[in-house]
Amino acid sequence: MRKGEATRARILDEAGRQAAVRGVGAVSLGDVAEAVGLSKSGLFKHFDSKEAMQEALMTLTAERFIAFVWKPAEPLAPGRERLERIFDLWMDWDQVENAAGGCLIMSASVEFDDQPGPLRDLVHGMLARWHKRLRLEMQALDRPPLTEDAAMIGVFEMNSYILGHHQSARLMGDENARAVARAAFRALLDRMTAKAA
Amino acid sequence: MRKGEATRARILDEAGRQAAVRGVGAVSLGDVAEAVGLSKSGLFKHFDSKEAMQEALMTLTAERFIAFVWKPAEPLAPGRERLERIFDLWMDWDQVENAAGGCLIMSASVEFDDQPGPLRDLVHGMLARWHKRLRLEMQALDRPPLTEDAAMIGVFEMNSYILGHHQSARLMGDENARAVARAAFRALLDRMTAKAA
Repeated sequence: MRKGEATRARILDEAGRQAAVRGVGAVSLGDVAEAVGLSKSGLFKHFDSKEAMQEALMTLTAERFIAFVWKPAEPLAPGRERLERIFDLWMDWDQVENAAGGCLIMSASVEFDDQPGPLRDLVHGMLARWHKRLRLEMQALDRPPLTEDAAMIGVFEMNSYILGHHQSARLMGDENARAVARAAFRALLDRMTAKAA
Repeated sequence: MRKGEATRARILDEAGRQAAVRGVGAVSLGDVAEAVGLSKSGLFKHFDSKEAMQEALMTLTAERFIAFVWKPAEPLAPGRERLERIFDLWMDWDQVENAAGGCLIMSASVEFDDQPGPLRDLVHGMLARWHKRLRLEMQALDRPPLTEDAAMIGVFEMNSYILGHHQSARLMGDENARAVARAAFRALLDRMTAKAA
């Protein structure tokens, strides 16, 4: 059993490496089996289809995201303190976790945005749960809590700054990317609480 | 000569279709030749390598972007009026122009952000020129013009809202995506001019 789990982890590691280069949709059972030194039927013992392997990979990535971005922030006070920590960790995430190919969730969200199917639904569900978590956090910026509408716009802006940071840091190689994104986010938090006051 | 141009256009159309599904990097000369009914040597008369075809595709996409987003806004007064038009057209762009696969420039920016080479440099150069154009536009929001630093943060936020809109409209299927993004952008323009006052 333990050996089986180790093999499963090796398979998903390799699938993640290939997905980082080619995209999640282009990962194939044959290539992964070859790279980890399994026969295709040996790999079938762990995943009975390409889709099952891709789904397991995305689920694992989401678990890592939560462990990396949410867990260290969870002990902090709800609201501003926790949101600032989340924002910084979220910017770190794709630099640290998947250094070769950027964040799989973000790549997958571009890759599958016009390809209906279970993988798209999976990515959609992950992002929807995460955005809901962030809305609650935004509402906790003040007492009484901010309205859901205000929180929704705040989450849109926060998420947008993360996407903008990703592009300016990784593609544009802008050294100020982090400072600019952080300044924009702190100004957002100021606005959110000023409006409520 | 005219026939040659028509064939070149058909080749790039097909390359664009394939890029929208698989990514720009995965477009191959062989597949494009087959789809447009040319021999591989017939295609070589137009593009002597896969890379040359991919570069021509990205250049054509950038020209279309400028024609779609910038040209209709160009006659308007610099500053707020023109920026609002640009923002709306930019949101429309990937719905209209490349309906099957989203904006090639955005996909390519995710696809190549960690793959150094001429295609990455090409996408980088396009975005850099476009962001410079937007910085000038942001500076024109007031007289005397806003500082370059203020304009740079404004462009970061504008670009981020476009990326956020792309994700919420296409992947999340959020019906309010456009209204939320537009509200965030108009509030940004208000802030930019309020700070200057």
